Amino acid sequence: MARQTIKIGIVGGTGYTGVELLRLLAQHPHSELKVITSRKDAGMPVADMFPNLRGRVKLKFSEPSTQALSACDVVFFATPNGVAMNEARALYDAGVRLVDVAADFRIKDIAVWEQWYGMKHACPDLVAQAVYGLPEINRERIREARIVANPGCYPTAVQLGFLPLMQTGTVDFDHLIADAKSGVSGAGRKAEVHTLLAEASDNFKAYGVGGHRHLPEITQGLETMAGRKVRLVFTPHLTPMIRGIHATLYAGVDSGVDLQSLYEQRYANEPFVDVLPAGSHPETRSVRGANVCRIAVHRPQGGDIAVVLSVIDNLVKGASGQAVQNMNIMFGFPETTGLEQVALLP
Amino acid sequence: MARQTIKIGIVGGTGYTGVELLRLLAQHPHSELKVITSRKDAGMPVADMFPNLRGRVKLKFSEPSTQALSACDVVFFATPNGVAMNEARALYDAGVRLVDVAADFRIKDIAVWEQWYGMKHACPDLVAQAVYGLPEINRERIREARIVANPGCYPTAVQLGFLPLMQTGTVDFDHLIADAKSGVSGAGRKAEVHTLLAEASDNFKAYGVGGHRHLPEITQGLETMAGRKVRLVFTPHLTPMIRGIHATLYAGVDSGVDLQSLYEQRYANEPFVDVLPAGSHPETRSVRGANVCRIAVHRPQGGDIAVVLSVIDNLVKGASGQAVQNMNIMFGFPETTGLEQVALLP
Amino acid sequence: MARQTIKIGIVGGTGYTGVELLRLLAQHPHSELKVITSRKDAGMPVADMFPNLRGRVKLKFSEPSTQALSACDVVFFATPNGVAMNEARALYDAGVRLVDVAADFRIKDIAVWEQWYGMKHACPDLVAQAVYGLPEINRERIREARIVANPGCYPTAVQLGFLPLMQTGTVDFDHLIADAKSGVSGAGRKAEVHTLLAEASDNFKAYGVGGHRHLPEITQGLETMAGRKVRLVFTPHLTPMIRGIHATLYAGVDSGVDLQSLYEQRYANEPFVDVLPAGSHPETRSVRGANVCRIAVHRPQGGDIAVVLSVIDNLVKGASGQAVQNMNIMFGFPETTGLEQVALLP
Amino acid sequence: MARQTIKIGIVGGTGYTGVELLRLLAQHPHSELKVITSRKDAGMPVADMFPNLRGRVKLKFSEPSTQALSACDVVFFATPNGVAMNEARALYDAGVRLVDVAADFRIKDIAVWEQWYGMKHACPDLVAQAVYGLPEINRERIREARIVANPGCYPTAVQLGFLPLMQTGTVDFDHLIADAKSGVSGAGRKAEVHTLLAEASDNFKAYGVGGHRHLPEITQGLETMAGRKVRLVFTPHLTPMIRGIHATLYAGVDSGVDLQSLYEQRYANEPFVDVLPAGSHPETRSVRGANVCRIAVHRPQGGDIAVVLSVIDNLVKGASGQAVQNMNIMFGFPETTGLEQVALLP
Repeated sequence: MARQTIKIGIVGGTGYTGVELLRLLAQHPHSELKVITSRKDAGMPVADMFPNLRGRVKLKFSEPSTQALSACDVVFFATPNGVAMNEARALYDAGVRLVDVAADFRIKDIAVWEQWYGMKHACPDLVAQAVYGLPEINRERIREARIVANPGCYPTAVQLGFLPLMQTGTVDFDHLIADAKSGVSGAGRKAEVHTLLAEASDNFKAYGVGGHRHLPEITQGLETMAGRKVRLVFTPHLTPMIRGIHATLYAGVDSGVDLQSLYEQRYANEPFVDVLPAGSHPETRSVRGANVCRIAVHRPQGGDIAVVLSVIDNLVKGASGQAVQNMNIMFGFPETTGLEQVALLP
Repeated sequence: MARQTIKIGIVGGTGYTGVELLRLLAQHPHSELKVITSRKDAGMPVADMFPNLRGRVKLKFSEPSTQALSACDVVFFATPNGVAMNEARALYDAGVRLVDVAADFRIKDIAVWEQWYGMKHACPDLVAQAVYGLPEINRERIREARIVANPGCYPTAVQLGFLPLMQTGTVDFDHLIADAKSGVSGAGRKAEVHTLLAEASDNFKAYGVGGHRHLPEITQGLETMAGRKVRLVFTPHLTPMIRGIHATLYAGVDSGVDLQSLYEQRYANEPFVDVLPAGSHPETRSVRGANVCRIAVHRPQGGDIAVVLSVIDNLVKGASGQAVQNMNIMFGFPETTGLEQVALLP
Repeated sequence: MARQTIKIGIVGGTGYTGVELLRLLAQHPHSELKVITSRKDAGMPVADMFPNLRGRVKLKFSEPSTQALSACDVVFFATPNGVAMNEARALYDAGVRLVDVAADFRIKDIAVWEQWYGMKHACPDLVAQAVYGLPEINRERIREARIVANPGCYPTAVQLGFLPLMQTGTVDFDHLIADAKSGVSGAGRKAEVHTLLAEASDNFKAYGVGGHRHLPEITQGLETMAGRKVRLVFTPHLTPMIRGIHATLYAGVDSGVDLQSLYEQRYANEPFVDVLPAGSHPETRSVRGANVCRIAVHRPQGGDIAVVLSVIDNLVKGASGQAVQNMNIMFGFPETTGLEQVALLP
Repeated sequence: MARQTIKIGIVGGTGYTGVELLRLLAQHPHSELKVITSRKDAGMPVADMFPNLRGRVKLKFSEPSTQALSACDVVFFATPNGVAMNEARALYDAGVRLVDVAADFRIKDIAVWEQWYGMKHACPDLVAQAVYGLPEINRERIREARIVANPGCYPTAVQLGFLPLMQTGTVDFDHLIADAKSGVSGAGRKAEVHTLLAEASDNFKAYGVGGHRHLPEITQGLETMAGRKVRLVFTPHLTPMIRGIHATLYAGVDSGVDLQSLYEQRYANEPFVDVLPAGSHPETRSVRGANVCRIAVHRPQGGDIAVVLSVIDNLVKGASGQAVQNMNIMFGFPETTGLEQVALLP
């Protein structure tokens, strides 16, 4: 039986995943927000930084404190990569359950992680026992997990889009293509020139075509689903909008497979994956602010290439919403608790 | 004592105020959506037109039917101007309570209404008994109203911004200026060239400077507050965003008035008006998707002109959210029921 | 030797390709704009519709008149599909040279054209002699052409991106993929709901995944380059910006090919194709308002899939700029005449 | 008689006014770009930073060098405030003519400048002889100026909008209001959080209502025009677009004045000020990329308040275009040389 209220801490709440966690938790019936830390902004009321929270979140940012965080039932890390791995041990030892919204616990192969993230990992043993927090794959393991590695935004959209195909086994696993487009909030709330409105608006570009950190995460996930090696070309693009990811996926498939049925059946019982009718084109705005992945599947000209369209809100199902979904699973709440917001359209 | 559930009808739900009503009512604990009419799209599931509602609203659009609507407790008109006045009588006689989100019942002086809206009014007697649905002014009368004239978007932002000043009496009532900027959803979900993304994006313009239909509505409201004639220059502008109105208001004031206190006191008990600390600049995104008006008041260089900044989401506090707020008042629910969404930021 | 000035007519100048032709021709040293027709807006000064042309274009829209157009040296059709084919004969017989910016003369196989465009073709014989106006392929034939079929926007970006690969012969011609993203001006200056700012802004979606009219045009072009059949999956997307196309192209390639050299050599002498240094990511804003296609080529993880990034301004190199380029070639002007605008950045 | 070519230097060319100067000068028939300095990016080809200039500007950024700059005929400062005043003397003494696109030489009252800009001025004597570079006021003095203080963006739009009124003398000089809206490029190409696309897009806000640096500059200009003291409330707003300023101006006027004639006559011979027909609403996109100010004047409801709408491209007529216009005047070229770009619409 679920506890009525759980005590929640957030480490590093000044970025977009932080404010989105706050938005969702402020509307969650079983959450009691206890601590939100920010070394730089300690003492400032959260609502002064994020005026949408005025009247709804009374908390102030506080100095990071293991003691205060240890009194929580769950702590979310909404920090840059490399922070959670250094602070996790003490909280873990104190019995706090952890959800890392950053990337520290996502990749099982430590050498691969260190190569892509350019630093030495601080706690490989905790990585080993962390559970990858994609509920559609790992729901049962998340229930018992002490550390959940919340998936990246691109990896969520791409893996959910490929999942049914990976499990059929009748795919060209060596030539998977994920052409993904992200809104600018995916780059975070960091002062950088290339994401200024004057740079990124009315503009479209690919980036990281030579290699992006989400490639090994996606590949690991697809290989787990497929039970074999896969080869993926992953091309991220920056699109001039705030929220949303649209992944357009290409895979060689046998002509016999009924793709529409395959997807509908696989996701029939998933509360947060919505397979659209045949012939549809999901729009990112249909998930803006909502914890949903909407998917459509096509086979153009009846050929041997499947085209899968998968959209999420990068800050919700691609980050903070999925983190709350994981929290719900971990603490025995109905999975949709506090996550029933309808997408904001227009 | 409030009834547990009220039966709701919506006439003309294919526009932005319609889909926004649906978004809010789908999350309202006491609403039972019974009918939503659209002559043109009868038979189409609502969620096919508005994919954000997939899985949340099962209803189909139906042919307008007085009989079906008469079985409702309340009917919202989310129609073009001139529709509600023709359909109100039958529903009124059937005892249904009405909230007109369009302009048919807003202006008491029928000749003025006919001049600005370019048609003959169909039911002046119902206008006479309709209550102007700005709760911050008319809360008590709304409670008993059988017809509520839901205020326009600009009028809501401008009237709430001017209200405390109007009631002080120490203002230059003959030279009020409202310089207002609206997102493009204010123009509705109509196929028109000037609101295409390729026309309205990366562009800014004033329109209707010679005269806009919201001018007489605002003037009527201000005069009611002030208890005297006022003269207002109202300049609307189109700004390249989806949602949001920012009204910048100018009024000559006596040097003695403590504007900050005046505003804070007037709105101290209003659940949906938020007076910011002195020196603030409200942003439209701080109310995106939320039923809030945020206001800041300045007196630049300590001079004799007050500058009031007032922001709302034109589709929420400026339309459908306020309509639900009025419904809550009319049916005895706590005024904030179903309206506690936190604004979506970023 | 080029004539000093040529007399120019434009049929149907009220859309985006029309105003863009006017912008470019107003700055062209050898153009004399004689006629611009619009049945609907005859009598209106062009600059009243397009205020950027105030003081620069004195012409009024006039009723379509074969006589007036016949006095021109060249006539551009900036009309919806299906208009040029009905009006071309009379002008052709009068000795006027024609550039059709629409699609009537692009597809050689009349049956294919009729299938995709849903109408009967009015002049198959003129299609047979029309020259496809992609100068990088057909420069010599354009010089003498009496009818130039100006390429579509997507087809320009995709064909220029694939061209060097098509000519090597070491490509998997059966699994070409073009994932293309377009700004909203590509949909034209038509009053439609789905391209309203309130619909298309802060949103991203694919469309026409089942089949888009530009597919047969691109396929025809690639097959001509390759000298064999090809199979292409073409996925267009709508991106929330005004101008620009970004085509992301995928093709299986042999590991031995030096893609960078291949592209640099093929385009070394092309004035309007710019191959970026290895590792680059072209941005659409780098060509905004300019008649340039910028291309970068990648081979991620050293694998067997080439990723080509190709950007154009859909209204310039993808339409009206290319039309002027074709005019320059047809009339013996240096190809860059009047087309040296630097892209507007930011 | 104008020299055929003048040698040009730019100090600090890595911001938006820098790249815009480069775009315009690359198309100017009499300019020879010799030096462009950037301490931070010395050695980098300019076109690597600004890809729109690929193939058009071959220069690299170089270390600041008085010697190299001294060999130029004119040097533009496209630097942050406070730089030009420290580097001007040496160049001035070397006989180079200077155009400061920043604010160092705009305000004659040094104490006022120091108060608003928060630093000590380095060369008050040079301020005394600098000419304020608004050609519509100071054309003759600019011709001979050795230092031109190029006006700010807001000040250009506001002063040109008020100018005819200031010169009539029948205005309420004590209650002028300038409600101005700027695109985000006005904040410069600096890494800052509040101008990120994810912060500034789909958002609208006022800022600096308590006091903005352009207030004393505008006031000084208006007082010079009026020949008396004026009092102005200036409210700047950030609007989610890249380029453009829309100033909405309010002034009490006598009922007898024919405002339309007043404006048309005052600007009849100005090449870069366009007075629209009565009843018009200028759009910022009608000047995007063009060196034009378009103005419309209204008197709503025939009352005693004039509403003037004035639009410019903040980077062109509001900065770099006006700087080139000043250069043309200084060196005896026709004023429109190199400045005849047609605005990019859509």
